[in-house]
Amino acid sequence: MEGERTIWWQDGLFMIDQTLLPARLEALRVKSIPQLVEAIRSLRVRGAPALGAAGGYGVALAAHRSPYGDVSGLLSEMEEAAERLRLARPTAINLSWGVDRVLAAARQGEDADEVRALALQEAEALASEDLAINRAIGKSGARLLEDGDGVLTHCNAGRLACVGWGTALGVIRQAVQDGKQIHVYACETRPLHQGSRLTCWELGADHIPVTLICDGVSGTLMRQGRIQKAIVGADRITRDAVFNKVGTYNHAVLAHAHGVPFYVAAPLSTFDPIREECDVQIEERDGDELRRMGHTQLAPCDVDVYNPAFDATPLEKVTALITEKGVFKPPLMPPL
Amino acid sequence: MEGERTIWWQDGLFMIDQTLLPARLEALRVKSIPQLVEAIRSLRVRGAPALGAAGGYGVALAAHRSPYGDVSGLLSEMEEAAERLRLARPTAINLSWGVDRVLAAARQGEDADEVRALALQEAEALASEDLAINRAIGKSGARLLEDGDGVLTHCNAGRLACVGWGTALGVIRQAVQDGKQIHVYACETRPLHQGSRLTCWELGADHIPVTLICDGVSGTLMRQGRIQKAIVGADRITRDAVFNKVGTYNHAVLAHAHGVPFYVAAPLSTFDPIREECDVQIEERDGDELRRMGHTQLAPCDVDVYNPAFDATPLEKVTALITEKGVFKPPLMPPL
Repeated sequence: MEGERTIWWQDGLFMIDQTLLPARLEALRVKSIPQLVEAIRSLRVRGAPALGAAGGYGVALAAHRSPYGDVSGLLSEMEEAAERLRLARPTAINLSWGVDRVLAAARQGEDADEVRALALQEAEALASEDLAINRAIGKSGARLLEDGDGVLTHCNAGRLACVGWGTALGVIRQAVQDGKQIHVYACETRPLHQGSRLTCWELGADHIPVTLICDGVSGTLMRQGRIQKAIVGADRITRDAVFNKVGTYNHAVLAHAHGVPFYVAAPLSTFDPIREECDVQIEERDGDELRRMGHTQLAPCDVDVYNPAFDATPLEKVTALITEKGVFKPPLMPPL
Repeated sequence: MEGERTIWWQDGLFMIDQTLLPARLEALRVKSIPQLVEAIRSLRVRGAPALGAAGGYGVALAAHRSPYGDVSGLLSEMEEAAERLRLARPTAINLSWGVDRVLAAARQGEDADEVRALALQEAEALASEDLAINRAIGKSGARLLEDGDGVLTHCNAGRLACVGWGTALGVIRQAVQDGKQIHVYACETRPLHQGSRLTCWELGADHIPVTLICDGVSGTLMRQGRIQKAIVGADRITRDAVFNKVGTYNHAVLAHAHGVPFYVAAPLSTFDPIREECDVQIEERDGDELRRMGHTQLAPCDVDVYNPAFDATPLEKVTALITEKGVFKPPLMPPL
C-alpha cells in the first residue's frame, strides 16, 4: 500500500478493495474502464472524494490503455470512457467533477504522448490536492469539537472515502491530534455497513476510541447525553440540501430535536450550487442488499424493497458546513 | 401448525421457531425448561404477548415434567422453573406476568394432579385470551387508519409476536378487513431483522402490501409524504415511557417532527404503571449481533459495541395507546 492512500498510480491504477474490509486489506489493480466501472458500482471504491480521484485516474487509465497514436482518436476514446465513468453512479458529484477536470487538462496536449502525460499529471495533482484539502477541512473543523465530546458519525467519511485523511473523520483525527479526547459513535450504516466495516476499522487502526451502534440507536444516545456533536460527509451539496448516505436525514432531525450540532464536512468539489434538491437523481440500489446477506436470507425473496443509496437533508437542519475554506453556517455558503 | 397460533400445547409445548423464518416455517417441540429458556434468549419465541404465553406454558411444562407426587415438592419445582423463566429476558413485562398468573392458578390445586391440570388450563386460557385481546386491540385501533394510508411499523408486532393476529399488525389487519387500502412500510429492524424476516413474511402471507426499508429511511419517507401513520407494539409501558424494540425512539421523534401520528398497540398485560422508565432494566445483547452475520464479518472482531435490545420512548411522543379497552391519549392511561 502506497503510504496511507486509498487509490494511487504506480505504473498503473491501484485501489484498496473496500468490499473486503475489515476481513482483508488488499490492493486491487484496475486494468480497464469496464473493471473500474464495476469497482465503482460495487463500492470497491466509494466516498465522494475518492470517487473524484477514481474518475480522474480513470480518464488517465483510458489514455494509457488506448492504442491510438493521434490526438483526436485518443481523445475520443477518452471521452467515451469519461461518459461511462460519469454514469457509473449518479449521485456523488465528485465523480464527474474528477473526470471532467482530467479530461480538460488532457485536451491541452499537442500530441498523443502529451495528452497521456497531462492526463496522468492532472489525476495525480487532483489526488494530492485531495489529501491537502482534507487536512485543511480537518483544521477548519477541529475547533468545533471539544475535549471529552462524544461524536456521532454515519457511513464512512474517513480516509477510505478520500485519497487519504478523511473529511468528517479528518476533523475528528485533527481534534485528536490537537490533544482532545473524542469518543466516536459509529452508526453501522445499513445496508452496506460502511460504518461497521470501514469507519470502525480505520479508527481502530488509529487508536481513536469508537463504539459501534445500530443506526436506530442514535436518538437514544442523544437523549442519554452521550452525543455532543454529529458530523458526516457529503456526496453532493446543492443550494438547499446535503445529499449523503441514506440514514443521514434521520440523524439530522434527531440532532435538531436534541439540540446537538449537526456538521457536514466536505471539500468545495462536493458543492453543486447551480442545482436544487429536486434536480438531483438519488441512486436506487438492488433490493437484495436488504433481502439477503451472503447465504443468509433476511426477507422473503419477492418482498418489495425501497433501497435508496442516499437521502437529502435540507440545509436548515445543518448547523455548519466544514470546508477547506473555513466553516459556513447555512444559509451562508462557501465562495466557489 | 395448529391453526394460526405461534405457540400452542398438543400433548406438549410447541412453537414456531422464529429464527428459521422466512427461509423455513417449522414447529419446535420444547421438552424442558432449559430448552425453553434457550428458545426465549435466542428469540425462537419473541414478542411481548407471545412471551407471556411462553411463560405461562413454561410453568405448565414444568408441572407436567415433574416427577413429584406431592403438592409441595411439585410447587417448589414449578417455582424454581418460574424464576428461571422470569430471568430469561428482563425487559418485556409479559413474560413474568404469564409465569405469575399460571403459578397463582396452579397453587389452588389440592393434589399434584390438580396442580398440573390447573397450570395447563390457565396457560391455555391465557393463550386463548391473548387471541381475543388482540382482536379487540385491532377493533379499537382500526378506526385510526384511513383508506389509502401508508403505515410505518418497526420490528414485528404481528401474529408471530403474539399467540395470533398481532397487536400493531392486528390493527392493520383489521383495517384491511374493514375494506381500507393500507400500504405498510416495514423497517428491517437491526440487528436481528424481525421486520424483514417476520413482518414482511406474515404480511406477504396475508397479501397485505408491504415495502421493506432500512431503519434509517423512515424520516425520508415521512418527508416525502408517504407515511400517514406509524404504529408499533410494546414490551413494557411504564407510567412515563414505552419500551419497545431498539430503533422505536428514533421513529417516534421523526414522526413528531413530521406531524405523523405515532401509535402504540399493546394489551393491558404490557402496562407496568407502578414503575417509571428509570426502574426498568434494558437488556444489552452480544455485540457479535452487529459484528458478524453468519460467516460474514461486518466489523473488526474486537470493536466496542453498544447493543441494547430495546429503547424507551417518553409518552409525550406517543399520540395514543391502543388497547383492548380502547384508545388512550397520554397522559391518559387505561384503567388497570
